[in-house]
Amino acid sequence: MGKKHIMVLGAGLVGSLLSTMLAKKGFKVSLYERRPDMRKTQLDGGRSINLALSKRGLKALEQIGIDHKVKKMCIPMHGRMIHDRAGNLQMQPYGMNGEFINSISRAGLNELLMNEAERNGVKIYFDHKCTDVDFDKPEAKFENEQGEVTVGADFIFGADGAFSALRNAYLKTPLFNYSQQYITAGYKELVIPATPDGDFAIASNALHIWPRGSYMLIALPNLDKSFTVTLFFPMKGQTSFETLSHKEAVQEFFEKEFADATELMPTLVDDFFGNPTSGLVTVRCNPWVKGKTALIGDAAHAIVPFYGQGMNAGFEDCFVLGQLLDKHEDLNRDLLKEYEALRIPDAEAIADLALYNFIEMRDKVADPQFILQKKIEKRLNELYPKKWLPLYPMVTFSDLRYSEAHAIGKKQQAIMDEVLKQPSVANNWEQLDFEALVEKLG
Amino acid sequence: MGKKHIMVLGAGLVGSLLSTMLAKKGFKVSLYERRPDMRKTQLDGGRSINLALSKRGLKALEQIGIDHKVKKMCIPMHGRMIHDRAGNLQMQPYGMNGEFINSISRAGLNELLMNEAERNGVKIYFDHKCTDVDFDKPEAKFENEQGEVTVGADFIFGADGAFSALRNAYLKTPLFNYSQQYITAGYKELVIPATPDGDFAIASNALHIWPRGSYMLIALPNLDKSFTVTLFFPMKGQTSFETLSHKEAVQEFFEKEFADATELMPTLVDDFFGNPTSGLVTVRCNPWVKGKTALIGDAAHAIVPFYGQGMNAGFEDCFVLGQLLDKHEDLNRDLLKEYEALRIPDAEAIADLALYNFIEMRDKVADPQFILQKKIEKRLNELYPKKWLPLYPMVTFSDLRYSEAHAIGKKQQAIMDEVLKQPSVANNWEQLDFEALVEKLG
Repeated sequence: MGKKHIMVLGAGLVGSLLSTMLAKKGFKVSLYERRPDMRKTQLDGGRSINLALSKRGLKALEQIGIDHKVKKMCIPMHGRMIHDRAGNLQMQPYGMNGEFINSISRAGLNELLMNEAERNGVKIYFDHKCTDVDFDKPEAKFENEQGEVTVGADFIFGADGAFSALRNAYLKTPLFNYSQQYITAGYKELVIPATPDGDFAIASNALHIWPRGSYMLIALPNLDKSFTVTLFFPMKGQTSFETLSHKEAVQEFFEKEFADATELMPTLVDDFFGNPTSGLVTVRCNPWVKGKTALIGDAAHAIVPFYGQGMNAGFEDCFVLGQLLDKHEDLNRDLLKEYEALRIPDAEAIADLALYNFIEMRDKVADPQFILQKKIEKRLNELYPKKWLPLYPMVTFSDLRYSEAHAIGKKQQAIMDEVLKQPSVANNWEQLDFEALVEKLG
Repeated sequence: MGKKHIMVLGAGLVGSLLSTMLAKKGFKVSLYERRPDMRKTQLDGGRSINLALSKRGLKALEQIGIDHKVKKMCIPMHGRMIHDRAGNLQMQPYGMNGEFINSISRAGLNELLMNEAERNGVKIYFDHKCTDVDFDKPEAKFENEQGEVTVGADFIFGADGAFSALRNAYLKTPLFNYSQQYITAGYKELVIPATPDGDFAIASNALHIWPRGSYMLIALPNLDKSFTVTLFFPMKGQTSFETLSHKEAVQEFFEKEFADATELMPTLVDDFFGNPTSGLVTVRCNPWVKGKTALIGDAAHAIVPFYGQGMNAGFEDCFVLGQLLDKHEDLNRDLLKEYEALRIPDAEAIADLALYNFIEMRDKVADPQFILQKKIEKRLNELYPKKWLPLYPMVTFSDLRYSEAHAIGKKQQAIMDEVLKQPSVANNWEQLDFEALVEKLG
């Protein structure tokens, strides 16, 4: 493999991982980041504080040999802990065999990935804002403190996030298909601090959900024993961020809807008015490759956070690219087009799944029919572990392509819809003909 | 109504009509156009040469009192003239009662509308390229030959087309939903000139179609007795613009597929390689209003041309705005939000209908089932003229809202799908229970 020079735009999670992977495969890699070095400066976010890392993300970290380091930063979450209005708890395990997802700090992981990139010879240029890209040369223009610079490379990857500069340059070209769609809910981050004696205030091994129909609160544990709490809530309308406009309204609303959590949030009202309200966007586009440039991660496929797959999908892009580099033994346009053809259908699938999962999390997890379905699917999996893996573990704990998981999930749901229509199935589900159900999957 | 100052971006068809309407209602109107004055300079297009003007467009021209002038520039087209491979012709009337659509020159109509705007006191600034807009002040930045100017107004309308500068400014704001989707076909314009003795080479009172399954040729008459011919054809793939890459291939393909037209196109091959190949995009967005600015026409809702409604939809935007101005007696943000709420669902509907009509035009018009359906629907309309108006005349010759027409059209199609499933319906359709069919519409 030749010592080609690869430029990566964006030193976020995906850009830093991609740069490390490319450097390990022998490329010269330059990584350009719009913001200052987060390892030296406190950045205020607008980005989520912690994330869920699962199989697909770990696979990419294994590919570059740092999964063990990363695992030390993780807090396992074995299931959803559902909180009803009365404060009753119900644990719904994620996996069929004790599998778990991992709560991890976005900043912590990003810093580790930047360090790994530099350790492998990647040069990172901070405070460089990309303003334009020539796809064919290829070269990129940047604004920095000194003024404007233009830099060339053999290939350029845009790992520059949901508001990608490279993708904005694509947008000015003919025949580029593009869509950005916001859901009607936005989100705001809050906090449950550690207890006075330095412990987790609620169970640490779960992703906590307060499902309330059209909105929800969730909480993920942090290493410092606090929880990052996120309210997903309508942006406009009768019960919305617009109507929670003064302190008393917020306090009263939280006490009524999320009483057990509110007790644990001493800074609730200050956080509510001090922290930003952010939108939730799905970005889809096609193509991902133009000339000698390509999009990757959120730049190619920003998704809503409800499947916990945003980072994992971006890391899987890198993993697939790494596999293709091993196969082609060089980076060229054919490889990029193969990457694009493989990943666009998978990105479409996880975008759809993530949108659907908001409904599941905020509403269905509290529904007896949903809980019954989970029970039946668990039994199906126990009896036919190779033939029936429910959708959530298929997406989260397997590395089946997202597009295949989505297709299988639709078939499973159609079968389960039929089953759940049967009268008194809640009482006699154990007498179902499980083999016949599995055979319907084909 | 106060003498507010309105800025309109884009002196195309919709911008010029809108400016005239606003000036007639007593506003001071400034119209800014990126290109030079088309009345003084030959512009090379990239835009279609002629268009179909129908009810909704005419209604807006009536509103500003110039429908009579425009009608003099029109050539009526009473139906689709279908050409099969053998050169056989079949006329499919558009209306139930002799209604017709009008072929009109884009440039001719645009020049007339610019003249009308100026006659009503609108000041047009040519060679002004809008580079940015402040929505709240509001003001717009332009580049012109002298450099950069910033101009303020009370309200700004973006009538600046499918690649709108105002919409591009919206795209940089949070929570803006946006989609641009190209279909896999593009188009190229060709010509059938007048005969040596100065007559139309084929029937002038029809829109000619050579439907060929996955592609088609169409022809619309011009006042100079020529026809503008448009090939709608896949951009990529086995039979596509990519594969028609040399003169012999083009000539041979046309002779095989469109023999009767090819005889009448002496400059076919030169035109084919001299004229651009253009893409076909659908643009959808939401909101259309930000601060004291609003989108209108293609800037808000670019659609594919297959229903002949692009210009008509844009003109109807102006008509609706004119009605709202009469109702509110002033231009303000409430009025703009009402315009937006009324027009977004209608724009969504005509965008969908236009996409569907490509399939109808290139494929279904040659299908015996389609022709049978048209016969049955014609009978339904004769028997129940107030209850059953087929979709095409509903969209083209009525001013029912596009969204309502679309909803009724879906119901009609579901009823007709059932009817067409009946065995030997082709032979005994006259014995159908027509009253029962009409009643199913509800």
